[in-house]
Amino acid sequence: MLSLSDLSNDELTALHEEQARAYDALLAKGLKLDLTRGKPSPAQLDLSNELLTLPGEGHYMDSTGTDCRNYGGIQGLPAIRTIFAPLLNVPVDQLVAGDNSSLSIMHDTLVYALLKGTVDSAEPWSRSPIKFICPVPGYDRHFALCEQYGIEMISVPLGHDGPDLDQIRRLVVEDLSIKGMWVVPMYSNPDGAIYTREVTQALLEMPAAGDFRIFWDNAYAVHHLTEIETPALDVLTMAAQAGHPNRVFGFASTSKITFAGAGVSFFASSASNVAWYLKNLSKRTIGPDKINHLRHALYLRGADGVTALMRRHREILAPKFEQVTAILGKRLGDYQGATWTDPDGGYFVSLDVADGTATRVVELAKDAGIAMTAAGAAFPYGQDPHDRNIRIAPSFPSPDEVAAAIDGLATCVLLAGAEKLLASRAQPSGAHPAGTQQHTHG
Amino acid sequence: MLSLSDLSNDELTALHEEQARAYDALLAKGLKLDLTRGKPSPAQLDLSNELLTLPGEGHYMDSTGTDCRNYGGIQGLPAIRTIFAPLLNVPVDQLVAGDNSSLSIMHDTLVYALLKGTVDSAEPWSRSPIKFICPVPGYDRHFALCEQYGIEMISVPLGHDGPDLDQIRRLVVEDLSIKGMWVVPMYSNPDGAIYTREVTQALLEMPAAGDFRIFWDNAYAVHHLTEIETPALDVLTMAAQAGHPNRVFGFASTSKITFAGAGVSFFASSASNVAWYLKNLSKRTIGPDKINHLRHALYLRGADGVTALMRRHREILAPKFEQVTAILGKRLGDYQGATWTDPDGGYFVSLDVADGTATRVVELAKDAGIAMTAAGAAFPYGQDPHDRNIRIAPSFPSPDEVAAAIDGLATCVLLAGAEKLLASRAQPSGAHPAGTQQHTHG
Repeated sequence: MLSLSDLSNDELTALHEEQARAYDALLAKGLKLDLTRGKPSPAQLDLSNELLTLPGEGHYMDSTGTDCRNYGGIQGLPAIRTIFAPLLNVPVDQLVAGDNSSLSIMHDTLVYALLKGTVDSAEPWSRSPIKFICPVPGYDRHFALCEQYGIEMISVPLGHDGPDLDQIRRLVVEDLSIKGMWVVPMYSNPDGAIYTREVTQALLEMPAAGDFRIFWDNAYAVHHLTEIETPALDVLTMAAQAGHPNRVFGFASTSKITFAGAGVSFFASSASNVAWYLKNLSKRTIGPDKINHLRHALYLRGADGVTALMRRHREILAPKFEQVTAILGKRLGDYQGATWTDPDGGYFVSLDVADGTATRVVELAKDAGIAMTAAGAAFPYGQDPHDRNIRIAPSFPSPDEVAAAIDGLATCVLLAGAEKLLASRAQPSGAHPAGTQQHTHG
Repeated sequence: MLSLSDLSNDELTALHEEQARAYDALLAKGLKLDLTRGKPSPAQLDLSNELLTLPGEGHYMDSTGTDCRNYGGIQGLPAIRTIFAPLLNVPVDQLVAGDNSSLSIMHDTLVYALLKGTVDSAEPWSRSPIKFICPVPGYDRHFALCEQYGIEMISVPLGHDGPDLDQIRRLVVEDLSIKGMWVVPMYSNPDGAIYTREVTQALLEMPAAGDFRIFWDNAYAVHHLTEIETPALDVLTMAAQAGHPNRVFGFASTSKITFAGAGVSFFASSASNVAWYLKNLSKRTIGPDKINHLRHALYLRGADGVTALMRRHREILAPKFEQVTAILGKRLGDYQGATWTDPDGGYFVSLDVADGTATRVVELAKDAGIAMTAAGAAFPYGQDPHDRNIRIAPSFPSPDEVAAAIDGLATCVLLAGAEKLLASRAQPSGAHPAGTQQHTHG
């Protein structure tokens, strides 16, 4: 395989000219494509259109005789909790169903801890400076919550099966102001990492502040892209067995199962934490939208209904992901320096380009009508220390649009890479030894 | 009119025995009635059953082409904001539509001010002790929010057309740690007070902390019980004209218009405050349930649709309120000492019984199967200094049940009053001069 830096100056110039022409052609296409966010496509949303007429004429009672139209029921309708408890591998009485956004539940959980403290806190978190461990690359909205409330973020590299454990164990035992850690255990955003049982066990066992909490955002628990449907870990049981029953705050939602903006969100934790959450929540609201819980329960029917639905999502999504990796392979596979993930689930492909070029790639793409998530978005404070990571969200556009966008993106990757290398060779004091290489590789 | 204290000992004993027999008969009925909360009745909820099949097959786009199933639209669907802006007398672009609970919006607004400060705050409210003005009697959930976050509450008496202005003006100018005030401007909970334009003007003009905020909970803006449909004040314009454009945080919801647990909530404020709210909210969620906004917009059609619906609510509610006041009049009208409101709107009748007996009345009622809101609930920290106020919520039970409950309640009021007076007369050092009176009035 070839590295751009292996090219002679002439070859590099030729490549640059070739990609510049390709980029001009790309500009001429006047694309208008959006790969910024992990949004379901209309075809995916169509799968759940039954919801548009549910719960149906005269249907407002659940099977226990609750009038779902009225106030109350702070923990959410048992019918919907019963469906999702096995999928999330948590006891149904330790599962809370909320409104349409699990991000909101994460926010509120954090707010309660900041203003009231957790069940294990000596004081509200906001009384002293606190820190969170942030495996990177990660989810920008998690990091935005920390930034919003002045929580210092400590980046730790995320590998294929979890983050750097040694580093985390050292950090949390030495610094008791580290109160939290973000985890997307299945198909992490954007890298598609899957936290193994062993890694999870280590995170649950390690000594840390008594009120240290893992914000376990199981956003993609059932969002498989292959036939391997890895079940969710029984993380609450594991936490209890590890001697830290209250360490995990679990979150999930149907945003990428039914309707992204009109689904049901979930909170799962130890019995003490659930009681703590509900006590705080009961000051905030009299109850969630139980009609939407009923609507979802009637539509999904059971855990099997969710699994069947997710397979239909997979039929729509998997080909788009295949397009992404196929085109990246075809266009960039001959060059070292660009690498990308081939995830088994979730909503993203994580692309690493030549160091110091991600911002330029996203800029070039934007000018060509291909909107990508901002470079650096997957890092705390939006700062990718290597300026190399780009998150690709292929779910929303059509397969043809995905193909066009990724092909255009590849042009931007090569153009930005060649630009940067040419610029560094043009510098008389260029520190890059490759700049002097004249030989070619086969 | 007769005061219980005017009765001779014999007469009082006779009354006590009579009410004790009535109470025994009440116990024997084995009632199970709930007048604790302002919950709509099933008949009221039935009015909006069209929502159960809306937005309808294939309907998920709003008129601007937004796919309401997907993420986004943090300010809420224009269609639903357009319907409620005139009813709340606010500009549509200064109105935000949220999920099912305005209490949640109040909570979140308070949290943002506590953790981030308002647009006019030098620092987050949580950095220093702060206080709120609480007109009493008032809404227990407002007071619970203050208590939850350690905000000191200062009670100020509420009259028929607003609270004691002199007292408030003196308090807020002297103590700049007073950052907020709860107001239910129309048909206050529980007294049914209506803040006049003059009182409102004074509250908007008065000197106070730069980040002093009136939490203007217009929960009953369109909830008239008579044909007089007083329109909402244009409070945002009034605030701007009074030189304090950011003073008002406005709240409302459809909880008592459509479905109590599955409606739409609203936030209205100055342009700066709305920008501040949305900026904070955008860390918490990607957007509200727009399908529910669309569902409501299709069902309500326009402001006129809401007005028509509220008249149908009135047809169901007004007779229940008439039952309450008629039975209270019949049973308690002959005695001084018990007074009650006859509200023109809202959800409550506020009953004042003999000082020091409200707790006992609620206890007696509870034992007889009539659940009333806890005595003192309408006061900060649940402490009614006179132990005399009882909130009656007649909306949920059927008219017959309301009649039975209020008749039973009247028995409890008389029994508790007679009990207390007898006990005070039995004390040799009874400070009550009435204890020695032997004459009767006609």
